[in-house]
Amino acid sequence: MPERITLYTAKICPYAHRAEIALAVAGVPYTRYEIDLRNKPEWYLPKVNPVGKVPAIAYGGPDVPADQPSPESVKLNESLVLVEFIADLFPESGILPADPVLRAKARLFIDAVSTKFGPAQAAVLHNGADPEPLVQALEALQALLPEQGFAIGEFSAADIAIAPFLARAELNLENDLGGYPEGKGEGQRILSLIRSPRLARWQEYSKAVQSHPAVASTFDRDHVLQSFKKRFAELRAKKFTA
Amino acid sequence: MPERITLYTAKICPYAHRAEIALAVAGVPYTRYEIDLRNKPEWYLPKVNPVGKVPAIAYGGPDVPADQPSPESVKLNESLVLVEFIADLFPESGILPADPVLRAKARLFIDAVSTKFGPAQAAVLHNGADPEPLVQALEALQALLPEQGFAIGEFSAADIAIAPFLARAELNLENDLGGYPEGKGEGQRILSLIRSPRLARWQEYSKAVQSHPAVASTFDRDHVLQSFKKRFAELRAKKFTA
Repeated sequence: MPERITLYTAKICPYAHRAEIALAVAGVPYTRYEIDLRNKPEWYLPKVNPVGKVPAIAYGGPDVPADQPSPESVKLNESLVLVEFIADLFPESGILPADPVLRAKARLFIDAVSTKFGPAQAAVLHNGADPEPLVQALEALQALLPEQGFAIGEFSAADIAIAPFLARAELNLENDLGGYPEGKGEGQRILSLIRSPRLARWQEYSKAVQSHPAVASTFDRDHVLQSFKKRFAELRAKKFTA
Repeated sequence: MPERITLYTAKICPYAHRAEIALAVAGVPYTRYEIDLRNKPEWYLPKVNPVGKVPAIAYGGPDVPADQPSPESVKLNESLVLVEFIADLFPESGILPADPVLRAKARLFIDAVSTKFGPAQAAVLHNGADPEPLVQALEALQALLPEQGFAIGEFSAADIAIAPFLARAELNLENDLGGYPEGKGEGQRILSLIRSPRLARWQEYSKAVQSHPAVASTFDRDHVLQSFKKRFAELRAKKFTA
């Protein structure tokens, strides 16, 4: 029988969002605690996650307020470890199906997200790099998709791994936010590359992922947009006015 | 009921070794096919793994010779995905225990192996870098160990993830093989750092891992040593006589 779950998270963080989506898919009650990543509570590192990052989960232990974590709960972190943990706690959620081959395919997709898509999208969105490697990474992921449906058919950990990044990337690009100069149409240019016919299946997939209830209900679009506006304004001030 | 398994592997490769250890722990019959990584059979990329790497598994399908893979078998790759796959196929193997918390702890250890230990050991052994970051990575892993036993108590996927690298690192250092100059005692110097008192628990763990039957029985020490002697002779010829 699963025990009490407290999730330490932050709306802006795509990694933390993975854990929230998984918990939404599982449909289980949990305590959600928003961590201000720029002003972390002093108890967070010593009592929850020494690395200071979100997401983290406190599992089990006595019924304590989230901001007074008990040493008796188990503390876990790393977003993909937490998604697997939630899948293990709630096998009936289908976050990972029972079939070992489908589970392996979900993990292969996740591996491609981590090794191919992750670095390429960070380079484009945060550093303003050439978007072609990102388009190629998306083509590689597209090649892993079945003809219809989600990454392994039904919605799973594979989709959870990429969903937060797709939602944030589109939001940023649509609002011309990124590590590239503002007001030159660069966001739209990258968007048009991502939405080109060679990525038609990917676009269909990306839309389906973003409109999945567990994704949409855990994505506070307005809060995330306001946060990114602030962050990219700071980043651009540093980068383009040196 | 699990179906037939063909493992494409190479004795020298630590990643491939992970899959062999997992299959040894499961104690199941499988077909082992050695891939010559410097002269891969022409059918390997198109029919087994487009990326060309080992390990890869052909799972299920008709009873065919390993060098004539059937399109009907499922092809899987990525060493950690394969270890999880073998754990899923054979839950009674204990490669991953049933308890979700222990499974998460195994995956956290594996994550530290991939992100902390992996880059540090490659830098030292292949590029001749300063060994201090490697010592620090080992201290971080040591901090994750329980007081006794393996990474999560019983031998598991966590130990499988690091075992091949421990075995190869010790073998290379003992034989003064690495991306550092030969004959200057550098291998012994790094070994003495790794074997210092601050890593006492780690050394005990490392020995236990390397002498686990599933590790020892799948490590062809002499073959690996001869292969590394050749490789490092080539690497040193390039690096130190330019």
